[in-house]
Amino acid sequence: MLERYGHGGDLLTAAETFGLSAKTFLDYSSNMNPFGPPAAVKTIFEERWADIAAYPDPAVRELRQQIADRYGVPAESVLAGNGAAELIDLVVRVLQPKVTALARPCFVEYEEAVHKIGGSAIDIRLREEEDFELSEAALSEAIEGADLLFLGHPNNPTGRLIPQSVLAKAAASGKRIVLDEAFIDFSPEEEERSMIRQAAVSETLFVIRSMTKFFAIPGIRLGFIVAHPDWIAKLRALQVAWSVNTIAQLIGTEVLADRDYARQTLEWLLAERPRLASRLEALGIKTYPSDTNYMLLRLPHPEKLDVKQLQRKLGGRGVLIRDASLFKGLDRAYLRIAIKLRGDNERLVSELERELNGLQ
Amino acid sequence: MLERYGHGGDLLTAAETFGLSAKTFLDYSSNMNPFGPPAAVKTIFEERWADIAAYPDPAVRELRQQIADRYGVPAESVLAGNGAAELIDLVVRVLQPKVTALARPCFVEYEEAVHKIGGSAIDIRLREEEDFELSEAALSEAIEGADLLFLGHPNNPTGRLIPQSVLAKAAASGKRIVLDEAFIDFSPEEEERSMIRQAAVSETLFVIRSMTKFFAIPGIRLGFIVAHPDWIAKLRALQVAWSVNTIAQLIGTEVLADRDYARQTLEWLLAERPRLASRLEALGIKTYPSDTNYMLLRLPHPEKLDVKQLQRKLGGRGVLIRDASLFKGLDRAYLRIAIKLRGDNERLVSELERELNGLQ
Repeated sequence: MLERYGHGGDLLTAAETFGLSAKTFLDYSSNMNPFGPPAAVKTIFEERWADIAAYPDPAVRELRQQIADRYGVPAESVLAGNGAAELIDLVVRVLQPKVTALARPCFVEYEEAVHKIGGSAIDIRLREEEDFELSEAALSEAIEGADLLFLGHPNNPTGRLIPQSVLAKAAASGKRIVLDEAFIDFSPEEEERSMIRQAAVSETLFVIRSMTKFFAIPGIRLGFIVAHPDWIAKLRALQVAWSVNTIAQLIGTEVLADRDYARQTLEWLLAERPRLASRLEALGIKTYPSDTNYMLLRLPHPEKLDVKQLQRKLGGRGVLIRDASLFKGLDRAYLRIAIKLRGDNERLVSELERELNGLQ
Repeated sequence: MLERYGHGGDLLTAAETFGLSAKTFLDYSSNMNPFGPPAAVKTIFEERWADIAAYPDPAVRELRQQIADRYGVPAESVLAGNGAAELIDLVVRVLQPKVTALARPCFVEYEEAVHKIGGSAIDIRLREEEDFELSEAALSEAIEGADLLFLGHPNNPTGRLIPQSVLAKAAASGKRIVLDEAFIDFSPEEEERSMIRQAAVSETLFVIRSMTKFFAIPGIRLGFIVAHPDWIAKLRALQVAWSVNTIAQLIGTEVLADRDYARQTLEWLLAERPRLASRLEALGIKTYPSDTNYMLLRLPHPEKLDVKQLQRKLGGRGVLIRDASLFKGLDRAYLRIAIKLRGDNERLVSELERELNGLQ
């Protein structure tokens, strides 16, 4: 299977599997901003390459200050990491939860981090009939038995933000809460819905952000966590020295200031997401509402064409999709796709049409 | 103090401390190859920057194969990491030693990793009168009480390889041994003295290598560990996803093949190290024999000018040295310096001469 290492976006495994060059794939299996890296990235690679001959700043001072200014939090509440993946691992190692409640289906890294420290996970079940949105009722069922809530905001692969009333209820429980806001910058409501400022002063709330999805730079690894400075000190004490490389620090500092890139991204997404959804619905594919740059889809006739078959067929023609049956709580009818620019999306639609045609 | 974050090479702290630009320092406090990054690095930055728009290969396949070919070990015995620092942390977390024997003075990361998992450290004392070389007698004293030996080969800050008879004795003890070979590529005896091939098949031996010192690329982070494939699987299970960024993978794969760079480096070092040592001895500074690209030095009159005073004075004129009194087992008479190209070394010598003149 393509998700040999547990994730989408593994172009080398795709190349080995389908006998095509890694460069030729149209990759709907990882959720990157389709505009590609902001202009500053190329400039940094051209002009600052020699900076790697010195160590990175071990305290990531300039980038942390830039993050602090951008989000209105103190720099002491910010820790940068080698991708959000490092921060998921670190926060679980520091908190040492015995029982972690996860809203399923969700990103597999949360459970892996919990298992690494010998903890267990319980499910908050997201219901198909509620479009996989986290409800107060579902939260209430699970919350008593857990000492940590680890939630995607928006959740992955379902794409939904957590309703404000549900977040308020979770916070009122006094439980520790980690919110993975890796994809929240794709929401026009980021400013109001992100819990980043609350996390900076709370003793129980942690917000993890990725910078690699929105700015399309997953290859260089960059994320950060916002929490109370006392927690940040504990997280930093466990972190490996020089964890954030020099180029990631330089890029992060530059791209946060690029407001044109952010505006262009939101304009594209707000137009293209409903358009693509209606094209897919016209093929009989069910689409679930999304607050971000990917969508969960359900195939119309999984007994005739399931997601594994579809993944293999599209892969052979150079189009990668995410097999969402690998997420606990979903079955062989489900796939996840990134939303890309219109031309690519049309190619995806026509490839799907070709496979679905004549199935009924 | 300059070593605010526990290490040398922190140019931003130096800039803040001395009011100079980070770019202007002549940095003798971190031990990088003075030829700077090999030519392939600039090419990769120019031509492959767009590769960061996709995830790194999660399994680091191409680089691991290149390492395997270069060192004659199976790729299954190799795990790449986000700098050697990540691998020091990982190996200690996997081995969970209760008591770790460290040959003091040594690199502070070993003890920090041991403390993070709640272990303790005992000393193998390296003696000044033996030029800080690890002896069988010193090893024997400590070995009984330890369940792990964590040794620099060559050791840092002292610069000595471990004699082969001592390594043989350590191996025969049946104890687990981690060798940090971060600087061994600077020895012309690397081929015979490295334990990398033994580690690939041993159940008790682990060899950590850095690629950032020899190739002068500390800003991009890259190291690897060689061990039995069963251990590699355990290390990998604890490692964070996509830990090694795309650019580090590309660079590592290219530079290992650059044999001219390696030859030039060894030619320079074998000529320049004894020359610089005799220049320093002529100033009354004691130099200890080194097998690598740095030297431990002892000041002639520490009661009149100790290393902290010297560091401050040289720093104010843009020259950074490593305060070796911060290594347990050394006092205010000791400093460590990198070996650089002749012109820079002459500048260092004249700066030292200026400070030492008229002290007697």
